Parts: sequence; structure tokens; C-alpha cells
Amino acid sequence: MNERELCWMTAAELGERIARRDVSPVEVIDAYLARAERLNPHLNSFLTVLAEPARAAARHAEQELARGERRGPLHGVPVALKDIVSTRGVRTTMGSKIFADHVPTADATIVERFRTAGAIVVAKAHTHEFAYGPTSNNPHYGPCRNPWDRQRVPGGSSGGSAASVAAAMVPIAIGSDTGGSIRVPGALCGIIGLKATYGRVSRYGVFAVSWALDHIGPLTRTARDAALALGAIAGHDARDPWSSRAPVPDYAAALSGDVRGLRVGVLREHFDEPLDDEVRRVVAAAVQRLADLGAAVDEVSIPIAAYARPISNVIMGVDSVAVHRQLLRERAADYGADVRQRFPVPVALTGADYVRAQQARTRLIADVGAAHERFDVLVGPTAPIAAPPIGQATVVLGGQELPVPPTLASLTRLSNLTGFPTVSVACGYTAAGLPIGLQIAGRPLEEATVLRVADAYERATADERRRPPVDDLV
Amino acid sequence: MNERELCWMTAAELGERIARRDVSPVEVIDAYLARAERLNPHLNSFLTVLAEPARAAARHAEQELARGERRGPLHGVPVALKDIVSTRGVRTTMGSKIFADHVPTADATIVERFRTAGAIVVAKAHTHEFAYGPTSNNPHYGPCRNPWDRQRVPGGSSGGSAASVAAAMVPIAIGSDTGGSIRVPGALCGIIGLKATYGRVSRYGVFAVSWALDHIGPLTRTARDAALALGAIAGHDARDPWSSRAPVPDYAAALSGDVRGLRVGVLREHFDEPLDDEVRRVVAAAVQRLADLGAAVDEVSIPIAAYARPISNVIMGVDSVAVHRQLLRERAADYGADVRQRFPVPVALTGADYVRAQQARTRLIADVGAAHERFDVLVGPTAPIAAPPIGQATVVLGGQELPVPPTLASLTRLSNLTGFPTVSVACGYTAAGLPIGLQIAGRPLEEATVLRVADAYERATADERRRPPVDDLV
Repeated sequence: MNERELCWMTAAELGERIARRDVSPVEVIDAYLARAERLNPHLNSFLTVLAEPARAAARHAEQELARGERRGPLHGVPVALKDIVSTRGVRTTMGSKIFADHVPTADATIVERFRTAGAIVVAKAHTHEFAYGPTSNNPHYGPCRNPWDRQRVPGGSSGGSAASVAAAMVPIAIGSDTGGSIRVPGALCGIIGLKATYGRVSRYGVFAVSWALDHIGPLTRTARDAALALGAIAGHDARDPWSSRAPVPDYAAALSGDVRGLRVGVLREHFDEPLDDEVRRVVAAAVQRLADLGAAVDEVSIPIAAYARPISNVIMGVDSVAVHRQLLRERAADYGADVRQRFPVPVALTGADYVRAQQARTRLIADVGAAHERFDVLVGPTAPIAAPPIGQATVVLGGQELPVPPTLASLTRLSNLTGFPTVSVACGYTAAGLPIGLQIAGRPLEEATVLRVADAYERATADERRRPPVDDLV
Repeated sequence: MNERELCWMTAAELGERIARRDVSPVEVIDAYLARAERLNPHLNSFLTVLAEPARAAARHAEQELARGERRGPLHGVPVALKDIVSTRGVRTTMGSKIFADHVPTADATIVERFRTAGAIVVAKAHTHEFAYGPTSNNPHYGPCRNPWDRQRVPGGSSGGSAASVAAAMVPIAIGSDTGGSIRVPGALCGIIGLKATYGRVSRYGVFAVSWALDHIGPLTRTARDAALALGAIAGHDARDPWSSRAPVPDYAAALSGDVRGLRVGVLREHFDEPLDDEVRRVVAAAVQRLADLGAAVDEVSIPIAAYARPISNVIMGVDSVAVHRQLLRERAADYGADVRQRFPVPVALTGADYVRAQQARTRLIADVGAAHERFDVLVGPTAPIAAPPIGQATVVLGGQELPVPPTLASLTRLSNLTGFPTVSVACGYTAAGLPIGLQIAGRPLEEATVLRVADAYERATADERRRPPVDDLV
């Protein structure tokens, strides 16, 4: 097995081969570290590589297997973590200059869970500064680059996580998603980005953008890998007061490949937003594919969904002021311009403004919940455009010149407001070869359903999948 | 059956006798209207009496019974509604001068539900102005008076509801509770006040104090009547986006009288607050009575419970600004001084201040939830003092001179923050003959459990119950 083959394996297959002793965790980790060493200078998707700790963990994982001990399907499988996830003894920058030398004294809960599952943390991934933006164009650590076109952004804020997985530098990377920060880079990098139900994954030890909207989740190349990763990290954590106590099912077991009879609602408001023509065409074809597979597809309108952006702006903005208030007073000059300029408006918002936004959000949740009485999943495009060039400020859609950052996240904010589980799955390419994402949202705690749809779609389109050009650099 | 006998019946007994045709709904309504006519001038607990509509409804209820149609246990039973509950075609003042002539064009959901259950609305009950205060000393409609001592307040803001039930002017009255506004008057008037789980009872058509803290619930003279009233009004309502979809159990069926083995936590922080000596002694004896009945009683400390007041102040204050912003701009002079003075501080609070309070609230919910892993219910005093004289501004407790309004609500705010179901049951009297309340809080949606404890306590102490002196005026 050569290094490239090993790195393009899914986490599921890697885990099985490790369990069968076809390949050792040490070989696996060495292969991924070698690939990362060659590709990271081109992508800047890893901010910190944990070469020695990962090798030590691999040796330990190998010893366990030699004793007949296997921790689970991810035993010996490498993972990367967005660099807002605290790692004990390992620099955690938050993508900020202020935390450039910050070394946490404790692990985030999800780090403990991955370790318990036998997974091996190999790197801390690039992020938009403080996870607060959708481009991963970071003034302190340089831009992260898209493996499909290195002159373009990978999306953000979990751009490093997405680019690394898309480039096969790691099969699983953790991201966070407050307005689309897992799903947008998932779409722009042609992989799976899964935002689980609010409270499903502990946020303890992860730097916050918004207590009300933040979600943690995996980026992977297949729905099955997302199911395995979520299974490892989901579950109640008393250290996160918003953590759900619902039991964690076997997500992978639900991936039957069968969507016959599943009721799919095509969310009209997400096609009414300014939308690139290629994106519209490719996503419409993907929805048709679900119908061909036997799903019952119908259009649904949820008028309040069109207001997700302003509602989210108030909640995210005010919540982030609560997080950054002290730092902004003391270190404002150490913020990059694009993040710093996000605060003056929400600083001036009153408590009553926030309450009104939360009330509107509650109405929105009720309306989306009502739509889910008729539909098992709601679908649409994940992002209205494919990856834009690094540094490009605006994009023209439907004759309007629109700012890139809010446009990238215009279709993902809805599911941060509802808290409902939502996945982006790669569903095709632009003529220029840039990936496009199909967004699939489900009912609370029905991660298995959205993953089942994504998995069925992947199976049906397996022949059409490509590898990004960056692979040729290895 | 004379009028007094009829009026001192419980709703449960009235409903049964009506069903047996021992007494007709028309006789029942006439008896209650006659009693109200005699007592209301002394108590001022009804702002509007619906004499003719109630008589018409009673005739209709009688016709239904004659046809063999019985709507349920409340068929023909009179109820009163706090005057913030919208009634179609009937003046609904909100206790405010501004709404003195306001006639809603639609009923609140709970009004529809009562009608469906066969209950008959006989009056709109006095309330603190805009339900925003714990004394029911209303500058526009005069003070409501306590049936146990007419120089004293009935508590608030649902003081009219509590006084009416305590004086047997009606067996069931609806109140609302944002910081204790059902339970405090329940305690001060010697009756049951039940705040169900947040979202259990629809708030559609009820004037809001705080979207995050408001609860609707019944005041009754027995736990069984509260069970019947809650059963009639609880349940999902699509018009209230915070409404719970959980099924509604048969609350009355759970009243077994048996609390053996039930784990009762005595909340230390609620005994550490400034507390009147008589209240402390009577409540401690009531807790001992639960132990005598076979409950497993132990002390529990939840340190964050001591911070319920400041957390609640921010949330309630800011929420109420969102409700009153417009009215305050246009009609500030038409507010009474005590309500008007509540707004300047929360108007100045920022969104981030509100977020911090909601974060603290979430921690508090988690900590109280954790205590409920060990305890089925948490108990303590409902209010730290018995009913104070009307107009008295301060009270001396433990050597401190404290303002009356926040003191009255100091032990009830916790359950508005958690949203957990909580009941106040009469548990004894001061030497001067004023009632004292025992507060019992349970797990989310476990209304049946807190009612079971209250009912068991009532059965064990049936011999000790008194009627208020106002009864002698009839």
C-alpha cells in the first residue's frame, strides 16, 4: 500500500484495515504526516502539526491492538482539530495574534472523546480569526487555500479543516459552525460538513463565537466517516450546560443507502436568494437525483426563512460582544480589520433588541418545525457561489454586486437559528471544476436521517467524484 | 344546599354534583355571582363580572347535560381569569389605565380550552398593573385586599385570582407567574398556586411581562382542583411558539396521597435568605410532616440558587422593555409610579448584558437539574413573609430593613428561571392567622409529582384548615 492510497482511504476503511492488522497505526500516521509535510506549504491548512505526539499515540494504539484491544472504528485513525479547540500542552491560537503562544492546560471534551475512541490528533487546523468569518483569509497566519484552486478560499471559518480533508491530509477534521462555518467550507472544498443538532456535541474547551448558535462537528470525505466521527464525539457533557442528554444512536448503522419514500422538501426561499446559475443548475440536478432514487420531492415555502440573516446578525453579533468585550477593551489593535469591524454595531444593540431577535428566532424555529411535519428533510444549496478568489471583496449575482462574506453564509444561517442537524454533501462541479454543495436539514436529533440522505447520494454518484488538483503536487 | 355550601365546594365536587344533576349549572353560577356581589366590594378582587354571559353559558351547559352530554369534570364549573387574559367582547384591562376600555376581538387559547372543557368564565380578576409587581396594589383600580385580613395585600400580581379563590367567590382562577405571581398570592391567601413547566400552558392572548419567564397556571383551594384545571388548559398550541408538544397526562389520576419513598430535597439557599421566624418554623414543620408521611427528606445546597434574583432582574427587565418600549414612549404618564420606575435600568442594559444573564440562567438550570437527579422535588418556603399591610414599603427581617416587593418574590424567581413545575400549598398560619405557603418544585413536565405531594400534604392536614374571616361578611 503506498502513501497516497493510504491517505485517500476513508476513516472507515482505514479503521477496518488497522483492525485487521493490514496496516499499523504507525504506518498510517507516518503516511499522513509525510503527505501533510508536502502539501501544507501549498495550502496552509495546518497551523500546528503534532508529529511527535501523534507518533507516540500511534505506537500506543499499535500496542493496544497487539494486546487484542480495539477501542472502536476509529482506533488508530488520524484526526485534525480546528485551532479553536483546546489541546492540553499544544498551542491553540484561535487564529488570533493574541493567542499566538497560548498553550491550554486542559483538553476540550471532544479531544478526550476522540482519545477514548482511539483516534489520533495529528494537527491543529487553520481558522478564520476567532472563527468569526467565512473565508479563512487570516491576517495573522496567512490565507488558507482551496485544494481545488489555490488562488481561491476554502471557505470558513473551518477552512483549514475542510482543505485538509479535501486534500487527504487527514480523513476527519473537526470544525465549528455559528453561521455556516462547517457547511460552507465543506461545500467549497467538495466534502461532507456536518452540523449536528444544537447541544449534541459538547462545546466545552472550544472558543466561542455565540453561545446561542455555535455547533461543533466533523468534516469528512464521506457521510459514513461523518457518522463515525459524530458517534465518537456526541453525547452529554455536564461541563457544557447546553449539552443534550439524549442517547447517542449508531449513526453508521442508519446508512442504508435507501431514500425511497423519504419526504424531501425543496426550500423555495433558498432558491429565491441571489444564486449563481451553475450552483442553481447543479443543485437542482442533485435534488432530481434524490427523486430518481425514490424520494418524494416537493417544494416548500417557509417565508420567515428569508429573514434568517438579520435575526442571526443580531444574535451572533451580541453574543460575540459578550465573548470579546474584555479583549476588545485591552487588545483591539491586535484584531484583524475584518473581525474588528464586526463589533461596533452589536456593541450598541440593547437588551431589548436582542430579545426581539430571539423572539423572531423562536417563531422561525416553530415555522421550520412545522415544515418538518410534512418533510423529513429540507434541501437546497449550501452556499450560493462556489469558492471565490482569495481577497475578492464582492461577487455579482443576478445583476447585484454583493459582499462576499455574508453572501457565502446566506443559506446556512437558518440551521444555526433552528439548531436542527444539517449536512452539506458535494453534489457536482462548476465548469471550472470547483465543487458545489447540497444542503440537507433534518429534525432535531435526526442526524442519522440527514446522513442517510447524504450517503445515498454519494453511493449513487460515486463514479462522478474527482480528486482535487493539489493531489498532483505530491 | 345553601349558597355558602355550594361556594365552598371544590371544583371537583361541584363538577361531580353537576354531573349527577344534584345541582344545575344555573344554580351554581347564580350562587357564585350572588356571593361575588356581596364580597367583591370588600375585596376588590374582580374587576369585571360577566353575570349575563355566565348565566347564558350555564343555561347552555344545563341543556347539554339534559341531552346527556358532559364535556368533562369541569362541566358547569365557574372560573375567573386574571385580567391580562384576553376575552372576546369583554373588557380586558391589563390592570392598566391605558387599556381601561380595551375590548379584545379574540379569546386567549386558555379561554377556548376552558370553554371546550365546559367551564364557565364568571369574572376577570384584579391584577397588579401589567402583571408587573407582587402586591396587587393597583393605582388605577385600587388595591385588592386579602380575605384573611383586608388591611393586607393578597400578594401579586395574580392577587385578584388568589383572593377570589380564597374567599370562595370562584373555585378556580387563572393567574400568570413571571417571578412568583401565581405562587406568592397563593401562599399569602392560603391556597394552591401552580406554575406548570415553561411551555406547558399556552400564552397566546395573554399580555406578556417576559417571554422567557412567563407562565400561566391555576389558583385553586385544592391540589386536585389544580390538577383538573391544568388538565383543561395544558397542551400544545401552534399560536404560542414556546408551547410544548409533550402529551398531557391525567394529572388528577396521579394524586394517590402516597409520598412514601419520594426523595424530597430541602433547598438550603431558600432558608438562608432573610426569612420571617414564623414562616421558617411553620415551613420546617410542614417538611417534617412530609417525612412523617414516609418521604425521604434531606438537605440540598445549590449555591447558584442564591443568584436567582439578579439573573431574573436582567432577563425580566429587558424582556419587559421589549414589550413596553412603544407604550412607554407614547403613554409613560399613564403608568403608575411603581411600574414606571422599573424600566429605566433595563432600558440601559446592552444585548451583551442580557446574554450574560441568559448564560448564568443556563448554568442555574443545569445545577438545579443536577439536584433533581437526587431529589424528586425541592421544597422550601414560597414567600419569606406572610401578607404585609397594604402600602407598607419595607419589612424588617433578621435585623435588616428590606423593600417589600423584591422580598415577596425572593424565593419564587428560581423556578421561573428553570421553567420547572412548582406549586405553593398552604401549610399553616402565623399567630395572627395569616396563611403561609410551602413551595414544591419538580422536574420538567412532572406537574403530577408536585401536585401529588401537595395533595398528600392537604389530606394529612385536612383538620387544620381554616376559612378566612371574610366569609363572615356573607
